[in-house]
Amino acid sequence: MGEHTVTSFDEDLGHIDRLIRDMGDLAGAMVAASTRSLLENDTAMAQRVISDDALMDARQRELDDRAITLIAKRQPMAQDLRRVVGAIRMAADLERIGDLAKNIAKRVSAVGEGAAPRSLSHSIDAMAQMVMAQVGAVIAGYEGRDARGLVQLRDDDRQIDVQYTAVFRELLTYMMEDPRNITACTHLLFCAKNLERIGDHVTNIAENAYYVVTGQQLPLNRPKTDETSVTVEAD
Amino acid sequence: MGEHTVTSFDEDLGHIDRLIRDMGDLAGAMVAASTRSLLENDTAMAQRVISDDALMDARQRELDDRAITLIAKRQPMAQDLRRVVGAIRMAADLERIGDLAKNIAKRVSAVGEGAAPRSLSHSIDAMAQMVMAQVGAVIAGYEGRDARGLVQLRDDDRQIDVQYTAVFRELLTYMMEDPRNITACTHLLFCAKNLERIGDHVTNIAENAYYVVTGQQLPLNRPKTDETSVTVEAD
Repeated sequence: MGEHTVTSFDEDLGHIDRLIRDMGDLAGAMVAASTRSLLENDTAMAQRVISDDALMDARQRELDDRAITLIAKRQPMAQDLRRVVGAIRMAADLERIGDLAKNIAKRVSAVGEGAAPRSLSHSIDAMAQMVMAQVGAVIAGYEGRDARGLVQLRDDDRQIDVQYTAVFRELLTYMMEDPRNITACTHLLFCAKNLERIGDHVTNIAENAYYVVTGQQLPLNRPKTDETSVTVEAD
Repeated sequence: MGEHTVTSFDEDLGHIDRLIRDMGDLAGAMVAASTRSLLENDTAMAQRVISDDALMDARQRELDDRAITLIAKRQPMAQDLRRVVGAIRMAADLERIGDLAKNIAKRVSAVGEGAAPRSLSHSIDAMAQMVMAQVGAVIAGYEGRDARGLVQLRDDDRQIDVQYTAVFRELLTYMMEDPRNITACTHLLFCAKNLERIGDHVTNIAENAYYVVTGQQLPLNRPKTDETSVTVEAD
């Protein structure tokens, strides 16, 4: 096989990697904007997040089409094939992160203004900051072929779960204090849950990126994703 | 290419299709058992659902490994390649359905006994029945290469969304009536949301199956997945 063919394959793959990075950047921006629109009750910003999701979907389709065309045209083997299949899977997780950010944005008007007391806003914001850092770090870890960093990321997801459990308890307390808070808090609960789930998708991306980079799969037993189902007992 | 090679490729693909069917059967059984364990407060049954999820994960890995080996070994083109990539995606959605059923099962002890009034149990049960029917139908539609049936399934998901909205409102009312219901109802709310999300994954599977069967993608605009974020206003 000539030099030219090899270079073209790498170029095709490079294009797919750029789409992954674009989707990662968009995912991070959507998480940031959806959380800000929620905490500042900014319905115009929320509307932009909802529109951005169509862009995310289009990019995923473009990546899928390119990846499948690449497999058909180049018939890559072993490590190269793994990179292409890994990219398809990572794109699926990034698209889901976009969906979850959109879902947060769609709840902005239902939550309304001043629904969350200051301490609760801080807790949700802290959780969002952790999630955004993870989204940025997993794309950087993939681009830098940083296997150790990717393992670390998966473990870091535990901290998001801990923060989610704290937000969950805070929301329950706030609902019990005053039944008029229940509707808004229920929506905030789903928003917090969405952030926790975005963390899970980052974990999936880290696992796929690790597989692409090393050719090995991470062990099956990953951290539990939702501690509230076992740590919070019914009254 | 000889008769023998063609037959072997079909045999390999047939094996992958059987794994899809097995995962579909297991997914349906997990949804059924998780809902029953929730409504009958059967912690032993819930524990079995939690164990079954490891089996689901193992099957997905087996399917992924077989699919990637098949692509590398046979280098399928066009329609055949589409079938293999479609199977990888369907398996990912089935695995997520298993995760969601497990999450319902994990909430059984937190919800506790007699937490839901009879009318609410009926509503959740009705929703679960619809979801189980969809899981069964999408696997049958894929196996039968029934493109029209698969389109119909995607549209049927709207009915699950309508039922979810009814359950959501019922749960809010119940929480407002008595704050002591809040913790249990919050967990039930997540269970109902999980059922609604399982419906979304069935929709994804239907879309992928349609692509595999017809070579065409369904139009982008699919039904909204969660009406509660727009139809229920904050008080």
